[in-house]
Amino acid sequence: MSINTVLTELSSFLGDRLSRSKSELEQHGGSETHFAPAPPDAVVWPETTQEVSRILSLCNSHAIPVIGFGAGTSLEGHTSAPHGGICIDTRRMNALKSADPGDMIAVVGPGLTREELNRELRHLGLFFPVDPGANASLGGMAATRASGTTTVRYGSMRDNVLGLSVVLADGRVIKTGSRAAKSASGYDLTALFLGSEGTLGIITELTLRLHGIPEVTSAGICPFPDMTAAVTAVQLVIQMGIPVARIEFVDADTARAFNAYAGTDMPEKPHLLVEFQGSPAAVAEASQAFGEIVQDFGAGPFQHATKTEDRNALWKIRHHAFYAICALRPNARAMVTDICVPISQLAHAVEETRAEIAGSGLLGPILGHVGDGNFHAILLIDPAAPEEMTRAKSLARSMSERALSLGGTITGEHGIGMGKLGLMHAEHGQAWPLMGDIKTALDPKGILNPGKLVPQE
Amino acid sequence: MSINTVLTELSSFLGDRLSRSKSELEQHGGSETHFAPAPPDAVVWPETTQEVSRILSLCNSHAIPVIGFGAGTSLEGHTSAPHGGICIDTRRMNALKSADPGDMIAVVGPGLTREELNRELRHLGLFFPVDPGANASLGGMAATRASGTTTVRYGSMRDNVLGLSVVLADGRVIKTGSRAAKSASGYDLTALFLGSEGTLGIITELTLRLHGIPEVTSAGICPFPDMTAAVTAVQLVIQMGIPVARIEFVDADTARAFNAYAGTDMPEKPHLLVEFQGSPAAVAEASQAFGEIVQDFGAGPFQHATKTEDRNALWKIRHHAFYAICALRPNARAMVTDICVPISQLAHAVEETRAEIAGSGLLGPILGHVGDGNFHAILLIDPAAPEEMTRAKSLARSMSERALSLGGTITGEHGIGMGKLGLMHAEHGQAWPLMGDIKTALDPKGILNPGKLVPQE
Repeated sequence: MSINTVLTELSSFLGDRLSRSKSELEQHGGSETHFAPAPPDAVVWPETTQEVSRILSLCNSHAIPVIGFGAGTSLEGHTSAPHGGICIDTRRMNALKSADPGDMIAVVGPGLTREELNRELRHLGLFFPVDPGANASLGGMAATRASGTTTVRYGSMRDNVLGLSVVLADGRVIKTGSRAAKSASGYDLTALFLGSEGTLGIITELTLRLHGIPEVTSAGICPFPDMTAAVTAVQLVIQMGIPVARIEFVDADTARAFNAYAGTDMPEKPHLLVEFQGSPAAVAEASQAFGEIVQDFGAGPFQHATKTEDRNALWKIRHHAFYAICALRPNARAMVTDICVPISQLAHAVEETRAEIAGSGLLGPILGHVGDGNFHAILLIDPAAPEEMTRAKSLARSMSERALSLGGTITGEHGIGMGKLGLMHAEHGQAWPLMGDIKTALDPKGILNPGKLVPQE
Repeated sequence: MSINTVLTELSSFLGDRLSRSKSELEQHGGSETHFAPAPPDAVVWPETTQEVSRILSLCNSHAIPVIGFGAGTSLEGHTSAPHGGICIDTRRMNALKSADPGDMIAVVGPGLTREELNRELRHLGLFFPVDPGANASLGGMAATRASGTTTVRYGSMRDNVLGLSVVLADGRVIKTGSRAAKSASGYDLTALFLGSEGTLGIITELTLRLHGIPEVTSAGICPFPDMTAAVTAVQLVIQMGIPVARIEFVDADTARAFNAYAGTDMPEKPHLLVEFQGSPAAVAEASQAFGEIVQDFGAGPFQHATKTEDRNALWKIRHHAFYAICALRPNARAMVTDICVPISQLAHAVEETRAEIAGSGLLGPILGHVGDGNFHAILLIDPAAPEEMTRAKSLARSMSERALSLGGTITGEHGIGMGKLGLMHAEHGQAWPLMGDIKTALDPKGILNPGKLVPQE
């Protein structure tokens, strides 16, 4: 069998950095959400681009699947191995290779997590802004074009990755991008690999754009009389160009979940959480403008703070929201939906979603990065009741279809993986098979993360 | 002959929107710079995506080249037709189809120019920021991933195009992107087509991100004692994060050229031109911070103004720089170089370039969008002296090689076309043939803008 040949050869140069232990296979083929486990045949921990190249070259000659793995925080089954194969865990490629304050650039290995990076950057007065919530690996964030709470101000991975080293299916190594702020030099291969979910190559190095830690950061939280008021206020804040660094929404169910989880007594109402960054004058100006808008919506009190501990206290509900919501229904599995709509359609989309979830009888609090028009419902499902999964899938599909009908997208930040394959044609039409053509050109044997993103044969 | 069959069939539905007149062929196959003319067999002016689809489908079946054409302002021979074929002039596809203040989005045809768009947007208080200098078509700007004076603040076409309609080589029509602010839905095809220079498809519609016209705009100009001082000041402004909307450099030769051209008496020294945008407080803060930095470099006086006419008067040298420089040597042809380096390497790169041009005996003033690390030397060549062209090419090559050795790119904004094909391997190595693989997957017969960007067989 080919797989045995490959395993023997891999062992010869990886030694104990190859594992077939049941627990490793299960952990790497599992998922934080509702996907059935699909373990690989082996997990490997390469340490260099050259080792990754050797692994891919070998797997390609034997047509063995290869799945990239970062921190395993994906929500759409990206790292499962439905066709078996070799899981490349990038955890040992986690060096901060350089951090250059003059150019505000860091070069990192793909296994470094964003929190690790930011800890190492702090003494330079710099930080990497993309914050998807989870402490994801930077390689994984690049592979899924991650975004999150700060995207409204700093953009997503698309805006903060200057270049990549990538190992192609056949083991060839390429470099994309440069250290310059921009370039018009040929196809934007960096952008092509960002969001390709391990189907076009394995990222082995990233050149990242850093930002200066702002002089002042002010965070605030504000309850609203109802959801429409909160979300309409967000539309206005964005349309008026008030420079928020973060603007997050949590609904009344999330507030209730948090009270039960943390023993607090927050008003069980929808809330907006905001953050402003910049010079003292800029922060004061933005904060005041925000305060005036929310007052017009009968919201308040708007509490805000600038000290780190006080800010963290105010934002605690956001940091713990996922686990607080899951605790609403012990032993339930979560299906996390993820749509993004044009800002003018946000209130409409959130309201219709709310009504549809209420009608379904499922628990599904709503929260999100509303400044981008991006929000999630966290649907809680009894794993012993397959009928609930059917209802949840139908809700998720309906949310995606609504997003498309409003000019939006089926995924703001979680990606396609296996979870949204069935919606790709609806969003992309003829452009989806074109993605398949590109995939075939770069990976003719289809070894890279099979079963994900592109049309399946 | 295939071409005659194609011409007959095209005429049947395009009528007088197909021309084979010598002047049209020459105009469309010419160039603003030093490239030899290479006219197409015919020029066509389609009016709809469907017509473009029909043209491509027909040309593809007969393997006839197709070259996209916008405003003809490209500087690297992008629109020449070295293999003949059909030039698709998008001038008649110049509608502003919609402008939506709620989402700050415009949908436009590819033939609309950026100045036309901004004229139509003004009454909404919105504008499209990308400004490459020339009044280029938006389709051409997308196809070349254009940037320019405002990129330091607003980004390039990469950051301001949300989606595209594209006709593929075989006539299939696809849509990329959406109206949402972000998406993680599959390969970033929008980014792939941006900068593909007409080699992967013909853009027939663009969804653009608009911005609010800022409350206050303040522009200024400041002479510096020498070039090193000016460029080092730029590095500091960027590294300190002072929010400039534009920061442009012109050297002493450009000031001299402008005095001769416009009859002014500017100090014949290097200058920085800056613009600040935002609230009155933000603009005052940024302008003061800038003033303090330049003072440390012995620069000044720093003149600035907020009224439109006064601003335009201060910035006149920038708007007329290209023609003023060309007038330094009547009847010369211009070769416009274009490199982009990491900001920390800017002073070094500009100084070495200056010295090398001085040593060559050619006239070549330097100017650029220095906030991005991007600058140009405009080399003036006597067309009757082929030896001068040889020297200019050698200078241009040396500039590009220096940019690469400093971690930069061979083109910040002008693209590859035919002019920089010979440098692509040096910048991209193995990634260049990969671009060729993508090209072949999307355009198997190679009909789209042959002779440009990808490796030539």
